[in-house]
Amino acid sequence: MRNFTETKNILFVGGDRRQIRAINETVKNGNTVSILGFDTDVEGEFEDNVQILGDWSEIEALYDAIILPLPYTMDGRTINAPFSKREIVINEVFDGISKKNKIIAGRCDNKIKTMAESHRIMLIDYICREELAMMNAIPTAEGAIQIAMEETPFTIHSSKCLVIGNGRIGKVLSKMLHGIGAKVTVAARKKVDLAYGFAMGLETTAIDRLDDKIGEYDIVFNTAPSLIVDYALLSKMKKEVLIIDLASKPGGVDFDEARRKGIKVVWALSLPGKVAPDTAGEIISSTIANILDETEGIE
Amino acid sequence: MRNFTETKNILFVGGDRRQIRAINETVKNGNTVSILGFDTDVEGEFEDNVQILGDWSEIEALYDAIILPLPYTMDGRTINAPFSKREIVINEVFDGISKKNKIIAGRCDNKIKTMAESHRIMLIDYICREELAMMNAIPTAEGAIQIAMEETPFTIHSSKCLVIGNGRIGKVLSKMLHGIGAKVTVAARKKVDLAYGFAMGLETTAIDRLDDKIGEYDIVFNTAPSLIVDYALLSKMKKEVLIIDLASKPGGVDFDEARRKGIKVVWALSLPGKVAPDTAGEIISSTIANILDETEGIE
Amino acid sequence: MRNFTETKNILFVGGDRRQIRAINETVKNGNTVSILGFDTDVEGEFEDNVQILGDWSEIEALYDAIILPLPYTMDGRTINAPFSKREIVINEVFDGISKKNKIIAGRCDNKIKTMAESHRIMLIDYICREELAMMNAIPTAEGAIQIAMEETPFTIHSSKCLVIGNGRIGKVLSKMLHGIGAKVTVAARKKVDLAYGFAMGLETTAIDRLDDKIGEYDIVFNTAPSLIVDYALLSKMKKEVLIIDLASKPGGVDFDEARRKGIKVVWALSLPGKVAPDTAGEIISSTIANILDETEGIE
Amino acid sequence: MRNFTETKNILFVGGDRRQIRAINETVKNGNTVSILGFDTDVEGEFEDNVQILGDWSEIEALYDAIILPLPYTMDGRTINAPFSKREIVINEVFDGISKKNKIIAGRCDNKIKTMAESHRIMLIDYICREELAMMNAIPTAEGAIQIAMEETPFTIHSSKCLVIGNGRIGKVLSKMLHGIGAKVTVAARKKVDLAYGFAMGLETTAIDRLDDKIGEYDIVFNTAPSLIVDYALLSKMKKEVLIIDLASKPGGVDFDEARRKGIKVVWALSLPGKVAPDTAGEIISSTIANILDETEGIE
Repeated sequence: MRNFTETKNILFVGGDRRQIRAINETVKNGNTVSILGFDTDVEGEFEDNVQILGDWSEIEALYDAIILPLPYTMDGRTINAPFSKREIVINEVFDGISKKNKIIAGRCDNKIKTMAESHRIMLIDYICREELAMMNAIPTAEGAIQIAMEETPFTIHSSKCLVIGNGRIGKVLSKMLHGIGAKVTVAARKKVDLAYGFAMGLETTAIDRLDDKIGEYDIVFNTAPSLIVDYALLSKMKKEVLIIDLASKPGGVDFDEARRKGIKVVWALSLPGKVAPDTAGEIISSTIANILDETEGIE
Repeated sequence: MRNFTETKNILFVGGDRRQIRAINETVKNGNTVSILGFDTDVEGEFEDNVQILGDWSEIEALYDAIILPLPYTMDGRTINAPFSKREIVINEVFDGISKKNKIIAGRCDNKIKTMAESHRIMLIDYICREELAMMNAIPTAEGAIQIAMEETPFTIHSSKCLVIGNGRIGKVLSKMLHGIGAKVTVAARKKVDLAYGFAMGLETTAIDRLDDKIGEYDIVFNTAPSLIVDYALLSKMKKEVLIIDLASKPGGVDFDEARRKGIKVVWALSLPGKVAPDTAGEIISSTIANILDETEGIE
Repeated sequence: MRNFTETKNILFVGGDRRQIRAINETVKNGNTVSILGFDTDVEGEFEDNVQILGDWSEIEALYDAIILPLPYTMDGRTINAPFSKREIVINEVFDGISKKNKIIAGRCDNKIKTMAESHRIMLIDYICREELAMMNAIPTAEGAIQIAMEETPFTIHSSKCLVIGNGRIGKVLSKMLHGIGAKVTVAARKKVDLAYGFAMGLETTAIDRLDDKIGEYDIVFNTAPSLIVDYALLSKMKKEVLIIDLASKPGGVDFDEARRKGIKVVWALSLPGKVAPDTAGEIISSTIANILDETEGIE
Repeated sequence: MRNFTETKNILFVGGDRRQIRAINETVKNGNTVSILGFDTDVEGEFEDNVQILGDWSEIEALYDAIILPLPYTMDGRTINAPFSKREIVINEVFDGISKKNKIIAGRCDNKIKTMAESHRIMLIDYICREELAMMNAIPTAEGAIQIAMEETPFTIHSSKCLVIGNGRIGKVLSKMLHGIGAKVTVAARKKVDLAYGFAMGLETTAIDRLDDKIGEYDIVFNTAPSLIVDYALLSKMKKEVLIIDLASKPGGVDFDEARRKGIKVVWALSLPGKVAPDTAGEIISSTIANILDETEGIE
């Protein structure tokens, strides 16, 4: 999508298929790339000039950036590196590199923040970047549509779809559903969000008036991070409705009640990495490029 | 979608999930409906006032129409009736009904045509109806998109898609892909078809110039009923391309050559019944309603 | 839009602004172009290498094609040449050129056909080309939308629009209106046309059921070449409705009755040349290129 | 678009055609409405049960709201009341009403704010409402498209359009242009805005890289409130480009330089009231309804 302004020397440590794509994109954009933690199953998947390090001892003293995966850890102790033969302990990373380095990592928690501070290493979280969140709305929306297609015996086209929430995912999802031919209603709390939906040619409804028409919808997508699809709403839905919840934990649906009523709910989390790892990797790569551009010269 | 002008008395004999939906829609539109050949697994799936016949002996002398499934037979001998406990032999149908009846069946071959003629029973094939073909393009296109989503590690959004052929399926498929955000090119032979694609805001290319740019596409959908994706084109495609062939037998892709080159091809036939049986059933029901309207009073 | 396969030597005789653009496009595509009948007001508007002929005497013996305007005549006697200082009589053209020439003209009537036959000169009418009709649907639809915007005190967005007829213009117009955010209903006679409209995500209605809902529409576009918007329909319309009739003479609206009822009707003919002469000229140029490709070697 | 929760008693003082529509909508939603300042030319344009006051003396002691127009004044001294026989001096309004009243006015300046404070009258500006700004983006975008259609000899369809700025107007305008078939590029400063444009299926470019491709565009729409289309950009544009500036004063285009270069610029301000006064009035009416709902019980 975009190029670094000039060649950088970058080290990627760990990650899943998304990171493999991010690595290849970063090389294709003209950078020098070394990788650590990709020594099982995926040997043939890298561009020719990616330098595959076998060991922590092979790293250089200084990179323009060291990239950790998204999320950087699953267990709080080791780097998230499913394709690595051996564990890469987080401490090891910080102990092994000079202070001049800058770490760019996904979903930083207090642990890594503290560690970075005590080692006086600059740490940047790419999950906080607005453009990453906006771009990730694309594979998330598409993944939600794929699930809807798989889980219903009818077409999305001409089905009545409700999209709760008009944030990034809501906006992209509504647009795509409309583009396939669904009858889309956007539900939001704020009047300006309803006005946006109306401007985009969609039906709109205030969330506090949802119960009037909730029985009409064939598919309900929730993108809002609070319990909106509750006992009361579930009671008025069609029995055959499909609910797809895209809200992160604790989710926006009363799952127990839905089960009791026999309503099918799919709680779909982390869709980008699941349905479109290549696209997700490109998004990571382009976000890292943006971060590098903006932090150029800052130490 | 539409109602019969007035109540009809209709018998459905055999069929799969699509036919179940067609039956329920036909009842909901105010008709009297009897069914034969649905006595396994699907008992609870019919509207209350559907009359379930156990046996050929229970049929009445005269219906406004007797509906056979799509296709009416799989083996040339019995009615296609996967939910029937016992075989329903085609001969049996013709022998068991009076000449006054009218049979509406899907994909009539010479055998059933001859039989109808010799029994002097009016026979109408609903697969020949243009509006059914047009409507079926919707679940076909959506099914193709579902497959594309499932089989690629990237999003349809912003991928380069080629749609070969600009008939009914090509038109609907291009529109939906564009609606999701794909970069769509339509390939057709006739200049008027290219002009249509251009008018719809898509890129276009003549089929005989396809080889210029065939290497750019991420997904190739073929809807044209002739061997267009041949050795020469396959040689110039990306190795990672996904080909989805929607053309009925013998298909529009050199499958052997594709396999040899390691190019993934999905030959996707009869998608409506597979991906959206309810929608497919509604289409059948509405087409039958059209036929009944138009043949009213003809004997 | 496309290039001639190889350089041609072409003479344009007469025409309006559309033809000026067609001339310039034809030159830009690498052809040798001479023009006759453009010696008033428009001198500076041609590409450098267009050869401007002052007189019929300057023409060559043989061109690859001689292009007459659309329509080729307004009065049945002279070529339609509004930028010409003197009249160019039709007879003069035929008398002045060798039989080897081929004339490509717009909207040929019996007079010119007879003349071509008696002179044994090949005559091709570009108005008959399907791709020209399809392409012209674009400026026609856009012109209709421009009129609608100008003549209404409300936005097209979210207005209720009825498009009668689902031919080329109907298809493009519906698509564009929908793209702006109008609520579009397509009215057609044939069920397959309604199915197309439905597939495109629009509301549909049979023409013979129009009177049910005709009172709801804010703007009615007629594209069908027969009197559909008659006394009965006009009686049930909103008083503030705007009707835009795109049907060629005698039109599809009872104009007298509309006037009597105080309903505003705009009868909009020949829109491409009026609202987008450059686009219309490009369409002519590209159609001529197609004709030349296809008639290559035919004499 | 929406109803007041319950009947209100409302006084409208002054305004143009938009206000006439706002008045009629407010009545149709079930409220009691009196109006002052509409006694010339527009007598027949109100719903039957609108109470037309002839004079300030006829007003009641207390309304649920007193609505002033948008903008509430043109000269700083009198209410903006083009359909009023006599002047309505602003002071008069404040002096003539009890403190219990609430004034809802458009584009409040310090003068009216001070006056409201000193009279201890609650004053609310509807121009500050986000949903009004979002809704007004619709007629603004449509008006811009109308101008583009009128001022160009080519179709919007397939023309290359640049939309500078991705705020409310930019978003709606890009969407509509794309819906007509234009090739739309969104230019923005913030990466998240570019990501939004990309998600919506559009081309994007950073504003600081605009000069690379500025020569390609046929139409440039500016929505950003700063001087972006400056000497440098103008120098690289096509001579035939059309620039439509939607930014309020001082505008976003170097008008003098454009004139010098012979580039056509249309500075289009206050489009909603000009191109779609009825829609603009509906937006005002619905915003006022929202304000009344939210301020219910506040004094």
